[in-house]
Amino acid sequence: MKPLYGVIGNPVGHSMSPDIHNAALKDAGIDGHYHGFQVENDDLKDAINGMKALGISGFNVTVPHKVDIMQYLDKIDVTAERLRAVNTVRLEEGQLVGYNTDGEGFLHSLLEALDQPLTELSFLLIGAGGAARAIYTTIADYAPKSFDITNRTIEKAEALIKSADGNITSSAITLKTAEEQLGEYDVIIHTTSIGMHPNVEETPISLANAKKTAVVCDIVYNPIETKLLREAAGLGLKTVDGVGMFVGQAARAFELWTGITPDVRKMKSIVIQKLGGTPC
Amino acid sequence: MKPLYGVIGNPVGHSMSPDIHNAALKDAGIDGHYHGFQVENDDLKDAINGMKALGISGFNVTVPHKVDIMQYLDKIDVTAERLRAVNTVRLEEGQLVGYNTDGEGFLHSLLEALDQPLTELSFLLIGAGGAARAIYTTIADYAPKSFDITNRTIEKAEALIKSADGNITSSAITLKTAEEQLGEYDVIIHTTSIGMHPNVEETPISLANAKKTAVVCDIVYNPIETKLLREAAGLGLKTVDGVGMFVGQAARAFELWTGITPDVRKMKSIVIQKLGGTPC
Repeated sequence: MKPLYGVIGNPVGHSMSPDIHNAALKDAGIDGHYHGFQVENDDLKDAINGMKALGISGFNVTVPHKVDIMQYLDKIDVTAERLRAVNTVRLEEGQLVGYNTDGEGFLHSLLEALDQPLTELSFLLIGAGGAARAIYTTIADYAPKSFDITNRTIEKAEALIKSADGNITSSAITLKTAEEQLGEYDVIIHTTSIGMHPNVEETPISLANAKKTAVVCDIVYNPIETKLLREAAGLGLKTVDGVGMFVGQAARAFELWTGITPDVRKMKSIVIQKLGGTPC
Repeated sequence: MKPLYGVIGNPVGHSMSPDIHNAALKDAGIDGHYHGFQVENDDLKDAINGMKALGISGFNVTVPHKVDIMQYLDKIDVTAERLRAVNTVRLEEGQLVGYNTDGEGFLHSLLEALDQPLTELSFLLIGAGGAARAIYTTIADYAPKSFDITNRTIEKAEALIKSADGNITSSAITLKTAEEQLGEYDVIIHTTSIGMHPNVEETPISLANAKKTAVVCDIVYNPIETKLLREAAGLGLKTVDGVGMFVGQAARAFELWTGITPDVRKMKSIVIQKLGGTPC
């Protein structure tokens, strides 16, 4: 049987997952296919039971189904359990098992930009949603020097710190405080949708007080260079764009399904080429 | 959204539907994909609800699900209702509608071999199962001179004649009677699996008494030339192999989904090429 893979989300019409996974399948010599499935919230249960009944080998999960899907799976891997969200599902002996490769995907792209170990670095996270949880929980395992979180609703930041239960120095702070003490942070990670197409002139934080050696990361990848990253580059700071995280999570998912490590640079170039074609 | 199509059955690993439909999609310039879904009987309901939730544009249905599927669809087209089986499903405004293109597919391939109108011809059908019903019901609409059915269980042949409710001269007869009066038939159609790979030395009926102008049809297409057709050709009779019906039903399904008429000869050559590679 030829394998079928896919992504469920809503919308998925502009997802680049089919492009990069179909290219990776072809490169790996696998005669399979990856399809984008647009699934309404009310149809999620039927869609997941259908994936199983139809014998689909594996699929990604994106907004808005990453959390809701968990109740319909047969098993949740320990990382996805901790991240409280699933972005990758694999059919294992007739059982649907949920994984989360978002944190690893981000970490992989971040590590390429760092020249110091995580334990020596102070982090600031902007946002406290699903992506923030994946990144915070994953990086906390590597015991960074400190890891503060700023969020519009500060209680959500506090809850995230508490739930991660890491042995780590973390404070939930206001945006004002974060901007004032920005010079303390080595790595600044933006995880909300501020600055995403079409609101490309929005920026989540002022970088005025950033230290000269800081690395600024944005998980938004449409546009690839958000206003935040453009300002960071203007200040001479190192930047990490969202394409790396997107491609990183895809590569880990592909490995889970096929056991084959895809060419991440090729995946990246496909995304960049496709985004280059869209007006930002 | 790119369209996804497929076939559900069990097994489907050797189905040639993905080959011919993917080629037709490519030729039509449609950036879609056709996948073979192996579905267990117990999973049929979940699979069908899943097809709908996942927004699959259309799919074929093959053994053993053609009848059972009807209870899970939102609407059954009048032809499928009469044929009491569904081989093609189309998603129409969120509703799954069942069709049956098997009868039309066979008729199309038969007409190519005939040089007289159906009203002037006497038919003999061998078998009284699902394929027999599709063929009998479809051809009966064209008012052939007569249309007898022979079947191991003669009651099934009687039931088929009765249920079709056509204004047509039909008798349910034993195989012995059929062989004795074979000279009366212009068209002999075999619809069981006798002679199918690997039992290639079996034959459903003796052609000894066939008239010299008779046309002999076999819906078995693996091997393409069954023993029945080989014997018919040896007697100088015209033959119609099962590839035509298989390709005909596929072409009608493709039209239902896309509005585009595919190149049936190309579909046929793909099947012949693929079957040529298998030992018969």
